[in-house]
Amino acid sequence: MSQERKIWRGFASDNYAGVHPEVFAAMAAVNDGHEIAYGEDSVTARLDAMIQAEFGPQALAFPVFNGTGANVVALQACTERWEAVICAESAHINADEGGAPEKMAGLKLWNMPTPDGKLTPQIVETAMFDIGSVHRAQPGVISITNTTELGTLYTAAEIKALADYAHKHNLLLHLDGARLSNAAAALGMRFKQFTTDVGVDIVSFGATKIGAMAAESVVVLNPELVNAMPYLRKTSMQLASKMRFVSAQIIALLENDLWRRNAEHANAMAARLDAGLRALGVDIPNPTEANAVFPIFTEAQTEKLQESYRFYVWNYATGQVRLMCAWDTTEADVDGMLAAVKSVLGN
Amino acid sequence: MSQERKIWRGFASDNYAGVHPEVFAAMAAVNDGHEIAYGEDSVTARLDAMIQAEFGPQALAFPVFNGTGANVVALQACTERWEAVICAESAHINADEGGAPEKMAGLKLWNMPTPDGKLTPQIVETAMFDIGSVHRAQPGVISITNTTELGTLYTAAEIKALADYAHKHNLLLHLDGARLSNAAAALGMRFKQFTTDVGVDIVSFGATKIGAMAAESVVVLNPELVNAMPYLRKTSMQLASKMRFVSAQIIALLENDLWRRNAEHANAMAARLDAGLRALGVDIPNPTEANAVFPIFTEAQTEKLQESYRFYVWNYATGQVRLMCAWDTTEADVDGMLAAVKSVLGN
Amino acid sequence: MSQERKIWRGFASDNYAGVHPEVFAAMAAVNDGHEIAYGEDSVTARLDAMIQAEFGPQALAFPVFNGTGANVVALQACTERWEAVICAESAHINADEGGAPEKMAGLKLWNMPTPDGKLTPQIVETAMFDIGSVHRAQPGVISITNTTELGTLYTAAEIKALADYAHKHNLLLHLDGARLSNAAAALGMRFKQFTTDVGVDIVSFGATKIGAMAAESVVVLNPELVNAMPYLRKTSMQLASKMRFVSAQIIALLENDLWRRNAEHANAMAARLDAGLRALGVDIPNPTEANAVFPIFTEAQTEKLQESYRFYVWNYATGQVRLMCAWDTTEADVDGMLAAVKSVLGN
Amino acid sequence: MSQERKIWRGFASDNYAGVHPEVFAAMAAVNDGHEIAYGEDSVTARLDAMIQAEFGPQALAFPVFNGTGANVVALQACTERWEAVICAESAHINADEGGAPEKMAGLKLWNMPTPDGKLTPQIVETAMFDIGSVHRAQPGVISITNTTELGTLYTAAEIKALADYAHKHNLLLHLDGARLSNAAAALGMRFKQFTTDVGVDIVSFGATKIGAMAAESVVVLNPELVNAMPYLRKTSMQLASKMRFVSAQIIALLENDLWRRNAEHANAMAARLDAGLRALGVDIPNPTEANAVFPIFTEAQTEKLQESYRFYVWNYATGQVRLMCAWDTTEADVDGMLAAVKSVLGN
Repeated sequence: MSQERKIWRGFASDNYAGVHPEVFAAMAAVNDGHEIAYGEDSVTARLDAMIQAEFGPQALAFPVFNGTGANVVALQACTERWEAVICAESAHINADEGGAPEKMAGLKLWNMPTPDGKLTPQIVETAMFDIGSVHRAQPGVISITNTTELGTLYTAAEIKALADYAHKHNLLLHLDGARLSNAAAALGMRFKQFTTDVGVDIVSFGATKIGAMAAESVVVLNPELVNAMPYLRKTSMQLASKMRFVSAQIIALLENDLWRRNAEHANAMAARLDAGLRALGVDIPNPTEANAVFPIFTEAQTEKLQESYRFYVWNYATGQVRLMCAWDTTEADVDGMLAAVKSVLGN
Repeated sequence: MSQERKIWRGFASDNYAGVHPEVFAAMAAVNDGHEIAYGEDSVTARLDAMIQAEFGPQALAFPVFNGTGANVVALQACTERWEAVICAESAHINADEGGAPEKMAGLKLWNMPTPDGKLTPQIVETAMFDIGSVHRAQPGVISITNTTELGTLYTAAEIKALADYAHKHNLLLHLDGARLSNAAAALGMRFKQFTTDVGVDIVSFGATKIGAMAAESVVVLNPELVNAMPYLRKTSMQLASKMRFVSAQIIALLENDLWRRNAEHANAMAARLDAGLRALGVDIPNPTEANAVFPIFTEAQTEKLQESYRFYVWNYATGQVRLMCAWDTTEADVDGMLAAVKSVLGN
Repeated sequence: MSQERKIWRGFASDNYAGVHPEVFAAMAAVNDGHEIAYGEDSVTARLDAMIQAEFGPQALAFPVFNGTGANVVALQACTERWEAVICAESAHINADEGGAPEKMAGLKLWNMPTPDGKLTPQIVETAMFDIGSVHRAQPGVISITNTTELGTLYTAAEIKALADYAHKHNLLLHLDGARLSNAAAALGMRFKQFTTDVGVDIVSFGATKIGAMAAESVVVLNPELVNAMPYLRKTSMQLASKMRFVSAQIIALLENDLWRRNAEHANAMAARLDAGLRALGVDIPNPTEANAVFPIFTEAQTEKLQESYRFYVWNYATGQVRLMCAWDTTEADVDGMLAAVKSVLGN
Repeated sequence: MSQERKIWRGFASDNYAGVHPEVFAAMAAVNDGHEIAYGEDSVTARLDAMIQAEFGPQALAFPVFNGTGANVVALQACTERWEAVICAESAHINADEGGAPEKMAGLKLWNMPTPDGKLTPQIVETAMFDIGSVHRAQPGVISITNTTELGTLYTAAEIKALADYAHKHNLLLHLDGARLSNAAAALGMRFKQFTTDVGVDIVSFGATKIGAMAAESVVVLNPELVNAMPYLRKTSMQLASKMRFVSAQIIALLENDLWRRNAEHANAMAARLDAGLRALGVDIPNPTEANAVFPIFTEAQTEKLQESYRFYVWNYATGQVRLMCAWDTTEADVDGMLAAVKSVLGN
């Protein structure tokens, strides 16, 4: 069908990228014969083992279709019917899921302003009042994102501080890991070191952005949250019938550390872009910690640049834009963008 | 990975089958370059055109991940917050979706006993009382399945009678088409002839069971239901980021009538199985109208047969079992099953 | 304002009756000074003590506004987010609450046909399949009504059999007691004897119909259900700010057994009506066990009778009507109705 | 029962006050005979007429039990399933209803920081981006409170500006009028002048705080919102069976302008308290515009004062407390409080 398609390049989103060839091959490799539907297949069994190898023996994987699904299912597992979620104002669950957590799970989000997309115990503390009062939606879980929607990175110690705070106050800690691979690569860590080992209770483990087609997995690290998961996944419309193909995608990323190769590459492309832009004198207020760069352009510059490369304006007030590098971003993409910026700045 | 897998054959479900090679090829064919995420890609645009070619110019496709998602999204589009759905007691939305329509959409299902899984205006009529009373959850939509969960088939005339009844009473008509291809093949019709042309308002168009990997589409035929769809799909966690791959699967099935070839084959295998079983004297209470055969075995016979072929008991009281033929069921599968039955009967 | 009102009598509903003078007096008696809002007042504290005196020391009262609220709050306390309720098809929660349990609590109701509005372990058993399967909404609670919507009465032994069945199968037992006083009077028992003592987990204790203005109370008998209650009541919009007046209504009914006096009177009026109708040869298929009589009239007879007395047709197919006696039904009301029937039968 | 009660006075909440004698008398006056349940009674019919006299001929009253109920029902009438509400961060629906709008109606609240509890078109404008995008919960309604939770007052012109903004942007305007009478008295206006006449679409009309027992009413001013109301009220568990008594409470407040007498009195008591406190040199950062005064005390002062009078700390960081005057606050209450403050300041 490709002849009808307009093929192009850009920095709009890692969701604009395609599927890594190894992921494709893994799906093809499980396409013979019949397998039991809805997760009792041999491929998903193998995924379970691999997730436990990565996240520790108590970990359990519940593959789902997409990130909204992973988050809404995971948050339900962490909350009673009447409880609330503490998250950053910039969190995807607050800003970009169309209200799905409220609509589908009835959850109130106590969304907190942050300087850089990252919660801290001090910020969470400001939402922890009237505990035990029926009049205030009671926090049941803290939800953080790593890397954040602003391209910043939580260290393992920062996550541990939040987990400790959470557990001391009878809260759980959910980690939205839509870009967990980029975080792990940036931290130089295995997943376990900044999730299980520091007290995270449940993870939305992202695969789609880092090279899969449509595959994420809730990874439950706190055994008390397990029993509810099969029912929550099914009733939340996130149970794949031919699940072997979802599981195969995640397996492909875990096998031979494809996730790490893809993430290191994307992060490196962002670093190259960051360095090149700074060399051109472009203002980049935040450090580039993973696969996204947030420079500031004038409106005219942005318009001109968007004629060649697609990307999104992140803040219309300041002119800050988001340049996202994907697993398939090439050095040529970066250098082409830099040349375009140079040309635009010269105007 | 296949060396670790147990490859086997059976009649348990068309969800146990894999992905048709043409569908796989179609996904691979759109895997170059970047495309806009969340449905604004060129592949999904092409799907729109193909759906309109099939269902008529007012039709609009909203691809989703799975059947539960398609149904829950479609039913929300058909109802006010407080309205109810009239369906057969055996309907998938009532019996097999874990309560998702109630939990996710707050919908009450007025589920009606039927002799054969099929609603009629007469059956629906018995649920149409206290109209306008706040005390009774007010019917807003009739939901039917074609082919039904009992393997039976609605004719175009039967659907028209329900659509006419629905519209006369200010109801909408939803068609759960998880096996719409098998129905079309059995009817010898194009989709349009027993949906758009007879007054169906909205369809859950199934692709997974007939050869896709994870792809269904709500097809909206009533233009008044369109505006809500994008928001309902997103908030119902059914919006794929890399949607081009979902759309490509459905395109592959529509292109060159792959859906029809697959469905005719599955239906033919069921007919061969039906004929063979009847020749052996097996009791099959209902006619075999599409790709499922529902014979009656004794408990001992069923246990013995399940040693060779996986399938489900449909009614423990009567001993009726479900033998489902998929797009990949072979004559050898059928003949092997018949031989097994012959052997078991000989006991 | 009464000069503008049309004052009349009838057998339509115990909700048509007004408020008993002792209930009015009790509200007036607590109307001096300030009290803490939302249930921390001294009147509600006294209600707690009285409920414990009636239902046993572990009982806790959570006053709410109405029966729908009591039921929806109580059922949420009994279920996980994904669970279902087993109830009679004729149950108020299924037939007459506009779909509130589904819409507000996301609950699926497995509603069972019954001969007389009463569940039995045998009937419940037919809904207890596929336990542990995500595809079928998992039963979490059995809900019964005493007296039932068909005017029938559960004995303590029948309730015990259901409670035993429930607990053996990890279910809870909810009792919708919108007419619990009529049941207690008919059984000649204290509330405790056919609730706490036989294993009921949670009760919707009705006050409005038996002489209050707008007051019901969830009474929690199973201590494991208590913690959720304050939050469920508040988020379900059933927390009264000036709760002392709600509690005072219920206290008035409990004090000096006003509930029993009112219920015995209403039941006696129904018995008088039943006897009189039978003496006139009217067909009353079911025994009259509490305060409702369900005779059969022809359509013409019903129309003629409704010119004098308001009442509802219960079954248009059979002509069965419902004649409900309230706490304020008088012998003159009954005798007048009997005279009207006699006159109509003479036509 | 009063002998067992601890009768006391204070400034904690207008919900701590009792029921005005005229309201009690009105309930008693409709307690003869039978009336149709669920709102088809003659008293509610009279309320309809009175509400139309107050709010204009298109107004329709839907009495409910409490403020949370009124707000959640009204907001559902204003929104599609997926839409969001723009409100002040300090709004009762955001801060004090336990998450009921999210849990019961699935609504996302875009809650905006405000200097004084009041939204302006400029503040609302900052939430009006990504209109038409499925990724951001789409605003459907603006919700304001008059008087606000911070004791401030919207003028009619300010409300008109918000209504004009709303309608220009396809939004509706909801007014939480838990203290609408205090606002009307402070503005010196009839209700209609700052609701119907300036474009408000729907009002939660508060009665409980200003002298009723348990009665509020959604007042629908925009005829397009009417059809949904009966179903939303019922399924939201806010439909009173013996509604005549709810309606009678509201009628009593409307009749002879009891609402105005009560509100003017409460406002005057607040003004007296404000003047007295200022004379004592107490810091009151905001003007006292209706029946609440928000002075600042030290922690020690607050503790000492609370030994004599109950009231709530509003901001632990600043020491600001809330002193709320009710319809039954007396000059002696105010003067006693002032004496206590004087004594505490003298320490």
